[in-house]
Amino acid sequence: MIIRDVIVTPIAFRDPPLLNAAGLHEPLALRTVVQLVLDDGVIGLGEGRGGRAVTERLERVRPHVIGRSVLDLNGIERAVDDALGGDAGPLSRNDRRTVFAPLEVAALDAQGRILSVPVVDLLGGAVREEVPFAAYLFYKWEGHPGADGTVVADEWGAALDPEGIVAQAHRMIDLHGFRSIKLKAGVLPAQEEAEAIRALRAAFPEHPLRIDPNGAWSHETSLRMAEEIGDLLEYLEDPVLGLDGMSAVHAATGAPLATNMCVVDFEHIAEAVEKRSVQIILGDHHYWGGLRHTQELGAICSTFGIGMSMHSNSHLGISLAAMTHLAAATPAVTHACDTHYPWNREDDIVVPGALEFRDGALAVPRGPGLGVELDEDALARQHQVLLDSGRSERDDATYLRRFEPDFDPRLPRF
Amino acid sequence: MIIRDVIVTPIAFRDPPLLNAAGLHEPLALRTVVQLVLDDGVIGLGEGRGGRAVTERLERVRPHVIGRSVLDLNGIERAVDDALGGDAGPLSRNDRRTVFAPLEVAALDAQGRILSVPVVDLLGGAVREEVPFAAYLFYKWEGHPGADGTVVADEWGAALDPEGIVAQAHRMIDLHGFRSIKLKAGVLPAQEEAEAIRALRAAFPEHPLRIDPNGAWSHETSLRMAEEIGDLLEYLEDPVLGLDGMSAVHAATGAPLATNMCVVDFEHIAEAVEKRSVQIILGDHHYWGGLRHTQELGAICSTFGIGMSMHSNSHLGISLAAMTHLAAATPAVTHACDTHYPWNREDDIVVPGALEFRDGALAVPRGPGLGVELDEDALARQHQVLLDSGRSERDDATYLRRFEPDFDPRLPRF
Ligand SMILES: [Mg+2]
Ligand SMILES: [Mg+2]
Repeated sequence: MIIRDVIVTPIAFRDPPLLNAAGLHEPLALRTVVQLVLDDGVIGLGEGRGGRAVTERLERVRPHVIGRSVLDLNGIERAVDDALGGDAGPLSRNDRRTVFAPLEVAALDAQGRILSVPVVDLLGGAVREEVPFAAYLFYKWEGHPGADGTVVADEWGAALDPEGIVAQAHRMIDLHGFRSIKLKAGVLPAQEEAEAIRALRAAFPEHPLRIDPNGAWSHETSLRMAEEIGDLLEYLEDPVLGLDGMSAVHAATGAPLATNMCVVDFEHIAEAVEKRSVQIILGDHHYWGGLRHTQELGAICSTFGIGMSMHSNSHLGISLAAMTHLAAATPAVTHACDTHYPWNREDDIVVPGALEFRDGALAVPRGPGLGVELDEDALARQHQVLLDSGRSERDDATYLRRFEPDFDPRLPRF
Repeated sequence: MIIRDVIVTPIAFRDPPLLNAAGLHEPLALRTVVQLVLDDGVIGLGEGRGGRAVTERLERVRPHVIGRSVLDLNGIERAVDDALGGDAGPLSRNDRRTVFAPLEVAALDAQGRILSVPVVDLLGGAVREEVPFAAYLFYKWEGHPGADGTVVADEWGAALDPEGIVAQAHRMIDLHGFRSIKLKAGVLPAQEEAEAIRALRAAFPEHPLRIDPNGAWSHETSLRMAEEIGDLLEYLEDPVLGLDGMSAVHAATGAPLATNMCVVDFEHIAEAVEKRSVQIILGDHHYWGGLRHTQELGAICSTFGIGMSMHSNSHLGISLAAMTHLAAATPAVTHACDTHYPWNREDDIVVPGALEFRDGALAVPRGPGLGVELDEDALARQHQVLLDSGRSERDDATYLRRFEPDFDPRLPRF
């Protein structure tokens, strides 16, 4: 049960040219894979954010984690905090949690392997046997421009208008069966994005719809959009930035508002409750501090009548499995979860088969721990992809500016 | 890991004549011991409230718990809820949680025994290695009146004035080393209880003091008491009944108010936060739904800047061990916990030795599970005590009225 080593492997994997309010996804997305090696040879898997800073911080906490019991999650969390300077240090609590999260997931995976039980059981047991996810639609280019400027269309093709979005939805739902749809917005003038929602409603009359402009809209635009398409939506996600802005939009429109931008730490919740800023919180164990702290968020949401879904960044199978166990064990998560997985799964570093969407949902893996196995060759391959790329951070804005020099990522934009 | 049997044993044990706002403790206190027997012979121990209703409800849920994995706490909770009729049934959520709690504690004890780890590790690991408790002082009679009306003094003797309370405090602190003091009040006119607090402050200048009249005071009396002794107190516990009453007292006095009466369910929290009714919540896993849900309460308290301590009813060692593991793993519990254990420990049904206060604190038991072992003979003995007594419910008011026919338990009284 004692942690003897922490293996940190930064990786990169292919990512299509997806547009969002911050810019354009680069050809490679970055993640970090963590392996906790226990004294009896058991290995637990975790996946966290990518980028050099995360890798370096994980290396910095590594000696403080080695030697601890894999059961002592609070002790590991404290060790991470202390190694990174605590509240007085240069890192925010959120940054420290981002380092802790893949360690906690790996610790729970290892615990499950030792006990031959799925992680969902370590989180209290399943309250649902399958976890629904949403089709996550993006405005996107036909393909990434090559070095010579030529574009080779990827398998998804372009989506820059309502027809393209509906076609993308059809493809994604044909492939995976999703029963909810999310449109990443904040890319085109709001009227065009409203048109896309209307087109989706016409094409998919029964699917709950959500739209997420990532704070790209002004207060006035948000009110207009709530009036125009509010009735078509399950919820409106981060139309504006900040708790006060969200409160004002909700007060004026009554529209249920979701967020993964203005409530991203426990210290934001009291003010959000007092101001009635948000009606749905998108949890994300990567920055809420692991699976157990995200369950605490769930308990808070249940207690205060706030709904819950899950946020996603570009990720691979370890994180998808972790999200699935978490959502299965957390009563508050009654909305379908977001996931980028259909955009990135080709380069996954877990052995295929455990994570196949059926009717848009994942059955909770019943294998021990997370229920996924590391594909060592794939891990080595994607690590080499990272090394070859020379990449160290994600920067959607700089990438888009390479092609659109006038792009200004400041918000609100519309 | 499968639950093969649930053994429910109601017991009774000696209790001194302790006074409170509701009446007088009867000569016997009631509890229920739960043993979860797993297929591999491991047995997990739980302790819950006493009384025929609890025993009967546990017997009713028994067939729905048998056959489940001892890891599936959410499933066991759901089974309890369903067997007792759910939200549409005749029982409150609180009543159902009271039935679930000893099962959950027993399940965690069994898990710990299987894994050879202490329960604190199943709750995330210790954030403190020892848990401080408070000396719980009571106004009390010299002894219980016998059938012929004669009174034989017990080892504690009478405490009906400031001198008696101070003497009781000395005895209890000499025995166990407590570094905090709680006075159960609401028994005598408030001025006399204020005198007792002043006498305690004089005798114990460094010990944090708390007083708990259980809602026996009027708004005006509460304001006067806050003014007179507020500066001497760590906190004032339930001076008045109800969230509005508590809000008004806090708004008028600024005194930190604690409760185990007006916030006893997750559904009370939102209103309590909005109205700023309480500054400290006394958790109690027996009615908050077990150790894990009480940890969720802890996360909520941390999130909303509310302090946390723990409430106690008359109890024995299984519950004391459970409280200790819980408090050790819950960062929010920064106030010393309440316990009746010094009043009842002579009749404990666990093997002595694991639960000895040192300087008023308990080291977290490191044995597997809760770290306490059942004394089968003691359990049989205390079960027989219950059978011989013919008792089925606790009723402090009726017992006091036997000797003071005019006693009226309605509140507020002073
Ligand atoms: Mg979002
Ligand atoms: Mg109380």
